[in-house]
Amino acid sequence: MSAATRQQPGVLTDEELTSLDAHWRAANYLAVGQIYLMANPLLTEPLRPEHVKPRLLGHWGTSPGLNLVHTHLNRVIKARDLDALCIWGPGHGGPAVLANAWLEGSYSETYPDVTRDGQGMARLFKQFSFPGGVPSHVAPETPGSIHEGGELGYSLSHAYGAALDNPDLLVACVIGDGEAETGPLAASWHSNKFLDPVHDGAVLPILHLNGYKIANPTVLARIPEDELDALLRGYGHDPLHVTGDDPATVHRAMAEALDTALDRIAAIQHAAREQDAGERPRWPVIVLRTPKGWTGPAEVDGLPVADTWRSHQVPLSAVRDNPDHLRQLEAWLRSYRPEELFDDQGRPRPHLLTHVPEGPHRLGATPHANGGLLLRSLPLPPLERFAVPVDKPGATLHEPTRVLGDLLEHVMRATADRRDFRLVGPDETASNRLQAVYSASGKAWQAGTLDVDEHLDRHGRVMEILSEHTCQGWLEGYLLTGRHGLFSCYEAFVHIVDSMVNQHIKWLRTTRRLPWRAPIASLNYLLTSHVWRQDHNGFSHQDPGFVDHILNKSPEAVRVYLPPDANTLLSVADHVLRSRDYVNVVVAGKQPCYDWLSMDQARIHCARGLGVWDWAGTEDGSREPDVVLACAGDVPTQEVLAAAQLLRRHLPDLAVRVVNVVDIARLLPSEEHPHGMSDFEYDGLFTPDKPVIFAYHGYPWLIHRLAYRRTGHAHLHVRGYKEIGTTTTPFDMVVRNDLDRYRLVMDVIDRVPGLAVRATAVRQEMEDTRLRHHDWIREHGTDLPEVADWSWDG
Amino acid sequence: MSAATRQQPGVLTDEELTSLDAHWRAANYLAVGQIYLMANPLLTEPLRPEHVKPRLLGHWGTSPGLNLVHTHLNRVIKARDLDALCIWGPGHGGPAVLANAWLEGSYSETYPDVTRDGQGMARLFKQFSFPGGVPSHVAPETPGSIHEGGELGYSLSHAYGAALDNPDLLVACVIGDGEAETGPLAASWHSNKFLDPVHDGAVLPILHLNGYKIANPTVLARIPEDELDALLRGYGHDPLHVTGDDPATVHRAMAEALDTALDRIAAIQHAAREQDAGERPRWPVIVLRTPKGWTGPAEVDGLPVADTWRSHQVPLSAVRDNPDHLRQLEAWLRSYRPEELFDDQGRPRPHLLTHVPEGPHRLGATPHANGGLLLRSLPLPPLERFAVPVDKPGATLHEPTRVLGDLLEHVMRATADRRDFRLVGPDETASNRLQAVYSASGKAWQAGTLDVDEHLDRHGRVMEILSEHTCQGWLEGYLLTGRHGLFSCYEAFVHIVDSMVNQHIKWLRTTRRLPWRAPIASLNYLLTSHVWRQDHNGFSHQDPGFVDHILNKSPEAVRVYLPPDANTLLSVADHVLRSRDYVNVVVAGKQPCYDWLSMDQARIHCARGLGVWDWAGTEDGSREPDVVLACAGDVPTQEVLAAAQLLRRHLPDLAVRVVNVVDIARLLPSEEHPHGMSDFEYDGLFTPDKPVIFAYHGYPWLIHRLAYRRTGHAHLHVRGYKEIGTTTTPFDMVVRNDLDRYRLVMDVIDRVPGLAVRATAVRQEMEDTRLRHHDWIREHGTDLPEVADWSWDG
Repeated sequence: MSAATRQQPGVLTDEELTSLDAHWRAANYLAVGQIYLMANPLLTEPLRPEHVKPRLLGHWGTSPGLNLVHTHLNRVIKARDLDALCIWGPGHGGPAVLANAWLEGSYSETYPDVTRDGQGMARLFKQFSFPGGVPSHVAPETPGSIHEGGELGYSLSHAYGAALDNPDLLVACVIGDGEAETGPLAASWHSNKFLDPVHDGAVLPILHLNGYKIANPTVLARIPEDELDALLRGYGHDPLHVTGDDPATVHRAMAEALDTALDRIAAIQHAAREQDAGERPRWPVIVLRTPKGWTGPAEVDGLPVADTWRSHQVPLSAVRDNPDHLRQLEAWLRSYRPEELFDDQGRPRPHLLTHVPEGPHRLGATPHANGGLLLRSLPLPPLERFAVPVDKPGATLHEPTRVLGDLLEHVMRATADRRDFRLVGPDETASNRLQAVYSASGKAWQAGTLDVDEHLDRHGRVMEILSEHTCQGWLEGYLLTGRHGLFSCYEAFVHIVDSMVNQHIKWLRTTRRLPWRAPIASLNYLLTSHVWRQDHNGFSHQDPGFVDHILNKSPEAVRVYLPPDANTLLSVADHVLRSRDYVNVVVAGKQPCYDWLSMDQARIHCARGLGVWDWAGTEDGSREPDVVLACAGDVPTQEVLAAAQLLRRHLPDLAVRVVNVVDIARLLPSEEHPHGMSDFEYDGLFTPDKPVIFAYHGYPWLIHRLAYRRTGHAHLHVRGYKEIGTTTTPFDMVVRNDLDRYRLVMDVIDRVPGLAVRATAVRQEMEDTRLRHHDWIREHGTDLPEVADWSWDG
Repeated sequence: MSAATRQQPGVLTDEELTSLDAHWRAANYLAVGQIYLMANPLLTEPLRPEHVKPRLLGHWGTSPGLNLVHTHLNRVIKARDLDALCIWGPGHGGPAVLANAWLEGSYSETYPDVTRDGQGMARLFKQFSFPGGVPSHVAPETPGSIHEGGELGYSLSHAYGAALDNPDLLVACVIGDGEAETGPLAASWHSNKFLDPVHDGAVLPILHLNGYKIANPTVLARIPEDELDALLRGYGHDPLHVTGDDPATVHRAMAEALDTALDRIAAIQHAAREQDAGERPRWPVIVLRTPKGWTGPAEVDGLPVADTWRSHQVPLSAVRDNPDHLRQLEAWLRSYRPEELFDDQGRPRPHLLTHVPEGPHRLGATPHANGGLLLRSLPLPPLERFAVPVDKPGATLHEPTRVLGDLLEHVMRATADRRDFRLVGPDETASNRLQAVYSASGKAWQAGTLDVDEHLDRHGRVMEILSEHTCQGWLEGYLLTGRHGLFSCYEAFVHIVDSMVNQHIKWLRTTRRLPWRAPIASLNYLLTSHVWRQDHNGFSHQDPGFVDHILNKSPEAVRVYLPPDANTLLSVADHVLRSRDYVNVVVAGKQPCYDWLSMDQARIHCARGLGVWDWAGTEDGSREPDVVLACAGDVPTQEVLAAAQLLRRHLPDLAVRVVNVVDIARLLPSEEHPHGMSDFEYDGLFTPDKPVIFAYHGYPWLIHRLAYRRTGHAHLHVRGYKEIGTTTTPFDMVVRNDLDRYRLVMDVIDRVPGLAVRATAVRQEMEDTRLRHHDWIREHGTDLPEVADWSWDG
């Protein structure tokens, strides 16, 4: 039945009500069963302590509300033949979502051992939050989910990410009132200013106010309804309120609200798609107020439990030892009348499945929640079209991210019809010099416009909002539903999403072990406007530690690249855009940077991840070098090459090897990371016993943390960012942090045996130049001419 | 003039208007001068290229708006004799705040070199965003500021933090429309549900809509005014709108809005304080709409600039090279008529200072922005009152955080009148077992209440909102204004504030070098519900990496403690609550944990930061140990002691030393951290050549990163969390991550020379026990009885 022909929205027949309520009761029964039971799942015998799990773990409080929402989504999905996905924000309520997946059969299809009968029910119960079983939250293991509910705040941005470029998809999103207090969630309400009713699907937020979080009332549940209503209207929504604790009343109201909401969504989409309506729609939102722990024990040990925070986890906590608790649990379970819900084989009776959709329309079976199934490879062009010509190293300058922008423009253009690529960033696409993309796609924008605006586009696929959280959430939702993207961000401020990316990496680590989960496109970060070039902004904008954060995480899922110039950035970008199931961090500058490698050279260098730059060193091949100058990152690479040049001029007999590192995990032992090098390889590059002066983009100790097991580690000396930041010139920054060319030459002299005596004068000259720098900059505010005009003479 | 007697709020006389406008023009002139000029500050001669800085860095766009707000705050502060503080959310607008501080004289009082005359003006201009000068943002160096504006999102929570327990303080807070898109800012609007009109001061948010961020329009500027109005009402505010681009009109409207707002605030406070009004007030908010880059160049190179995003930084970018730009700059500067504003010595003429307040009422001179001046030491009791009795190690169990809760209860009670201590946390105070504090102070709550509620208190000083960002922002604001506090947080989710704590540490690092900034109380984290005890929540709640993040930061400002039991936690808590200018991270469990040390022992052990636990080892003092078992963290400590016990039983001849580490930075070399150990000390504890098996609470490579320079590093073998998390039993967690007692014994056998052969049978028994564990847990879901019942027998 289509929305248009539906005459009496939301009016349930008694039969429909009975069936929906039975489904809900069944889901509630199954949720309680998962939390408590390890045997006797159908209560065919009186409940005894040994039927109950020894450790009671799980969250009951939100489960009946989630079950209600699932039950009613089933109805409208089936009635309207919808493609739908649901994001379960209160993901602690794992028992609810698992219960529904089991009822609709998708669980047994995904996990054939957990059959839709008594035996399967026993497994479903026992495995829940049991060692070796399944997590207590909605998790990667949960069919139909793209969202771990453990860390709150991201449900709504995930929902929007899923809806983008999925015009036929309805994304319902349950937001708990606890989660609604978080910053990321609060910001993401404004995502509706970026949702294109023509090319994107619909997001239906369902704000579920059960009144409490772990131990407190929630803010949104305790402000007057008119204030909440104003808030949601202020967010640009048109609210529908459903309130109650009488199941039949709530069923009717919820059905009516859902029908109204879906009718409005249909009307909005029709107006935008058929009538070219230009005005930003006011999308519906449902506010559902039901008691926390609804239908659970009203009182335990003399204290109120249902409709209070005491329902949050396990309302009856001493069931094995306290006969009263055991009796209460049995009464609670029997209150759902399981004998009416399951046949004697434990199979759900047909009448409660009347409104369950079929096949991939089931929420637990939608391919959108297993996005890898829908993923197409990106149409990536030959890189030669964008490569900068390099006849010899260091002869020309380019802004690497601007060159990348041309590649991204192509990708954006090549996906104009497919619409499966998005570029996100917190208002920094142009600042990060990627603005070429605008010629292929403007910036998504549904709010008001003025004549002065540039590149705003109701149908654009560049997403810019000044919220790293929202950017990250959108992109995660987009990738998890089978599309591609790139997040460009100021390096320092990507720490804002440290905790979000943790969860995404955990997700990937888990899905990689689940055979039914198809690989998805990697989450790609371009970190630019980096620590060494904060001339405008200084210390507050300087932090290269995201790499450290990422490298703490599961090695199988994380990759970090520091391309030193434009062509290597192209090669790395090409690689990460083709990759699957990783979080890729690419650190690259936006400022003019010498071009070191031709496209061919760049490709080979990046494939190896690191290598000797013969042309930059002074080895003659007849013996080991006297010293290795290693570098990772664009600014350190320039300083190392300038140091190599100084050494060639001043100490021509010294055999210097220059090693550039793009893929930083190569430094790890091969047992610790898939990209790690064997000791044999490492020793061949860095030598087992010669001094290695390593100029690194970020915190120097990271390199030690990666290389501490190597034979030559005692000879490794690392320079990097030492948390000395300020508003100053680029060269002054490296001087302050002892990463400059003169300091590196001094390091070489200090560490190569015998050189200190022989090169006293050279060392003094380096020292003097650094002093000259300090005087010059204080007076002129610019860098020494010999630094400003430096170029490679190799 | 008090609010009550003011008859015609907001009506300026022409004279007042003239004076305010002159002040505003002067501030604008000074802002432009800072961005551009390094000579000829008063334009006493025609502007020439060499007067202009070689590198033009700074943010003009927001500056005129900030200048307007400052000018008008001056007026009401003086007229009403207010104690006020202003948080400048658009902190990029450093030139504006510096200009105002210079005009009011507070700048020259703080920095006597920068006099309030032409010479000082020249310095003010040149130093701005110049190498060796001052940052381009509002920063620690800025008089009157507690807020770095570089990273957006925290202004409003800082403002609330400052207002808490400062009943006579007005905290104005300018929120840029860019910042308003961030999650932390969006969440912090709800802080008004936690502000007590009796004991707390007032926060007056001024939402400054200039329409654009770096390169895009802003969401809040481009939704209809009624929608914005609804949003602010939904946030619980009563909005006042000021819109315009004609200075005189805006001056009048702003003056009227400020008077109205302050009258309403006075009425709210009067009702709450004198009439005991119980209802949550609707506090005013001002929405100020003025053009971005107002009064700046309308058009540059044929493109509109004023009132567009092109005003964000430096509107005229080629002044030194492009004569048109130079002419435009001169005309722009002269448009403010500097000759009317400054006398021939460059001093501000008196008429524009009419409304500038005096002494500490000036926004640049308020002691609340230099909170250390107001700080009193906390009344901390003797720890013996709370210590758990320990006659012998490991004989009793306590929940360390619960014991700490008793101490915090005392602190809360002892500060009942002073009101200078707050406990913040995201809805986890009770979950983290600190609930004893509620008997001394309830939870701050101004929203609706129900009979079922517990411990909610309109005047409470425990702050709980499900937003780590808001908790952190409140606490930062509270500390920066001279008070004390503690943030208790789930360990994994403290990463949510990674980027916020970065900024706070940067702040402390900078203020430590500013002699005029008095030390403030440290920001203290209690991280609990940690990685090893996520029995309920599993992998999503497991991340011990905050310590790694913190230890990347300025060593002078960061401290990390891992007390292994209840008494050591008390000792550490006592220490951190007395400390100044640090970020202290304390990691401690909430689950029952053996008591190892008496209070006296704990005090000595914590003062040393680490030490040998003689009673746990089997050294006889006659020779070096065969192996060192080191541990940091409560769970690793228990496993190491259990391993020591197994070794004593099975290999009684082995000389085992047990070292416990509380203060993890002790492992660093003394040159790298103030708490670092000399090599002499390190070798004395850990030996230079014996195997060290180190069981660490977090990521094992952190220990290598700290200790890689030590002589014995090659013999250091670390066990820790390897990102293998799930919902399981505590012991299964350590087994999965190879941190369990049996694995540690195997490590010892594998690493002590000669032991492998001698102890084959013991090793096999360890291996067998681990296998038995796997079978047992799969069947029972609990830990092996010998583990569950384990206790120390020493």
